Amino acid sequence: MSGSSLIQDLIEALKCLPGVGDKTAQRMTFHLLDRDREGARLLAGRLAEAVEKVGHCVRCRTLSEHPTCAICANPGRRREQLCVVESPADVVAIETSTAFRGQYFVLMGRLSPLDGIGPEEIGLDVLEARLEGGEVEEVILATNPTVEGEVTAHVLGEMAHQRGIRTTRLAQGVPVGGELEYLDGSTLAQALADRRDY
Amino acid sequence: MSGSSLIQDLIEALKCLPGVGDKTAQRMTFHLLDRDREGARLLAGRLAEAVEKVGHCVRCRTLSEHPTCAICANPGRRREQLCVVESPADVVAIETSTAFRGQYFVLMGRLSPLDGIGPEEIGLDVLEARLEGGEVEEVILATNPTVEGEVTAHVLGEMAHQRGIRTTRLAQGVPVGGELEYLDGSTLAQALADRRDY
Repeated sequence: MSGSSLIQDLIEALKCLPGVGDKTAQRMTFHLLDRDREGARLLAGRLAEAVEKVGHCVRCRTLSEHPTCAICANPGRRREQLCVVESPADVVAIETSTAFRGQYFVLMGRLSPLDGIGPEEIGLDVLEARLEGGEVEEVILATNPTVEGEVTAHVLGEMAHQRGIRTTRLAQGVPVGGELEYLDGSTLAQALADRRDY
Repeated sequence: MSGSSLIQDLIEALKCLPGVGDKTAQRMTFHLLDRDREGARLLAGRLAEAVEKVGHCVRCRTLSEHPTCAICANPGRRREQLCVVESPADVVAIETSTAFRGQYFVLMGRLSPLDGIGPEEIGLDVLEARLEGGEVEEVILATNPTVEGEVTAHVLGEMAHQRGIRTTRLAQGVPVGGELEYLDGSTLAQALADRRDY
């Protein structure tokens, strides 16, 4: 309330969450203090623990509480296929498809010179060393189909080509289960250009 | 990711926030760990502190880190007028209007027998003692205009009437700045029934 600074402080702190503004932060605060103190206590503990203990996988750079993440440490994952993505969330999305049994490299960003994000910030030196290792036979470029993602994919492609490594890019087209009516023109144009014999 | 239990634990814990499901919790987790660890650390600390130290005002039952909240402790607020609301968020909303200089009583809920919320759960015994005190001259019923809110208002009204205390209810009608076109029929009917000379 007015003058109650602990409550105001909590409302302010909640605004660090993406998509959370004044009103939502206030609603969350009252909900937690009013109806779910146990949940709030648990959340506080887990936040503190995760911030302290979660670092980056030394092989693929994704978020991991162990030096090497579970996927990189899994001997069942094929080391010849390397899928390069922008973020850990992309890894989760691709894993959900269960269609990929290779390994990942997570850029933790995309090339964006205007924001000061260059090759080093997205770990291209680490990736280069990995490609030099000779183990990787195919690099799957799975950066987002945005301008910056495409630029990043281009640079990654060059890097692999120089070493004679095959590169592929995720297919673009009509989403499975989607409706043509609601698709944007660029996606439809791409789907038409890449149409397949049936 | 998969197998990284601290990250999974944090995603689960974030789902205690209202309106936060699987996807949002995941996005929040990656945002915090990836881009805002300082914010996450701060949030963890403030959550823990608020949960530990924020209790309820002994006079009005609202959330407060002090035994008596700032509004109840303010000698400038008129003790003759008592506005009864359902939640601390309602107090914030009414305070924003700056149109009320009296004091509040916060039910921290509404009568809802089916959910096991009876008179005691919403502090009607505390309110009764306050009304008996003789200080209060007007009870403003500001519970929500829902079925449960109306039932609660009715019970509160009876309680005040028995002690000869004036009771008022917030006016219902067309919101200021609203457009008739988008208003529901019940609100319009109420606005017509309560129309004023112009």
